[in-house]
Amino acid sequence: MPWVKDFDVEGAVGCAMRVFWAKGYQATSISDLVAAMRINKGSLYNAFGSKQALFARAFLKYDRENRQASLRKLEAMDEPVLAIRTLFDSMIAESEADTERKGCLLVNTAVDLPNQSDEIQKLVKSAIEDLERFFRRLVEAARVRGEVRPDIDSSVVAKSLVGQVVCLRVLARGVFDVSGLEAIRSQALQRLGA
Amino acid sequence: MPWVKDFDVEGAVGCAMRVFWAKGYQATSISDLVAAMRINKGSLYNAFGSKQALFARAFLKYDRENRQASLRKLEAMDEPVLAIRTLFDSMIAESEADTERKGCLLVNTAVDLPNQSDEIQKLVKSAIEDLERFFRRLVEAARVRGEVRPDIDSSVVAKSLVGQVVCLRVLARGVFDVSGLEAIRSQALQRLGA
Repeated sequence: MPWVKDFDVEGAVGCAMRVFWAKGYQATSISDLVAAMRINKGSLYNAFGSKQALFARAFLKYDRENRQASLRKLEAMDEPVLAIRTLFDSMIAESEADTERKGCLLVNTAVDLPNQSDEIQKLVKSAIEDLERFFRRLVEAARVRGEVRPDIDSSVVAKSLVGQVVCLRVLARGVFDVSGLEAIRSQALQRLGA
Repeated sequence: MPWVKDFDVEGAVGCAMRVFWAKGYQATSISDLVAAMRINKGSLYNAFGSKQALFARAFLKYDRENRQASLRKLEAMDEPVLAIRTLFDSMIAESEADTERKGCLLVNTAVDLPNQSDEIQKLVKSAIEDLERFFRRLVEAARVRGEVRPDIDSSVVAKSLVGQVVCLRVLARGVFDVSGLEAIRSQALQRLGA
């Protein structure tokens, strides 16, 4: 009979994800993880191999359930400018509701990129590139609909919208109040010329 | 005879600063610090009290010698729009030269703000507020000179320029190449309407 994991692996990854998200990869200890995941150290290493491998699992879960799921819903609105505005509105609302000020696991990891493993560096870059392509598609769609100026450079604007997401997420962790976050949103929308 | 420190305290703080800058506060161990500072653990605790207190010293040194010194020079140019452009140019040049991709100690600390001590949280916020006031003064000066549109809201634009500095510093740590950083600069200058 093969060895069977006697705990809910996906649930445990979710618990680990929340610890990494709030504390950051470096500051998270194995003791923090086993306490949050309610498993013992042996089970953790048996099931996941290492803190680094568990972080990769947690990061992918976060990325799939948070970033990718949100972007998919926004793109399905089929209203490109409204979708971008809604993304910024919902990040501000999320930041206001986030009493732990966890921010965004993707951005928190990106700021410490040189200290991450090659695997995590690749995952972070690929998630950011995907966000950039999302913006590029929306800006292009808005251009075709005549909702933004016709000479807009969707590739440059997409990069700067990624920048706006990043700074909103960083500054929402306790530096800026809501008026600062709104200034960033207004910059993003101005950039769009919408 | 009072107890005399037998090492160059300011030089040692500089060495600690470089470690915190590249590795981040959480990932920096006391062993990393004593190795970089070339003193023993006893001297470190005697002279600085704790890792946290040493970090506050290092952060203040960084802020004084890097951020404050640069902003003072830029403001002395007495060419507000050129000064803002020069700030973004020099951050891009610095990022390209930064083979360790250390980024900016202020921004690296801001992204992890909820996990910092109250003292560090205050230092970070006060440095960001100072940067915001710098931008506000320059935008106001540019308005008086007629170099930006007369109805510009210097307070909102200053906040969004802080945002541009933050995202440039984060994304320069390995996510964006120079074309991405240039997109952020162009966004900052567009915001200025200059």
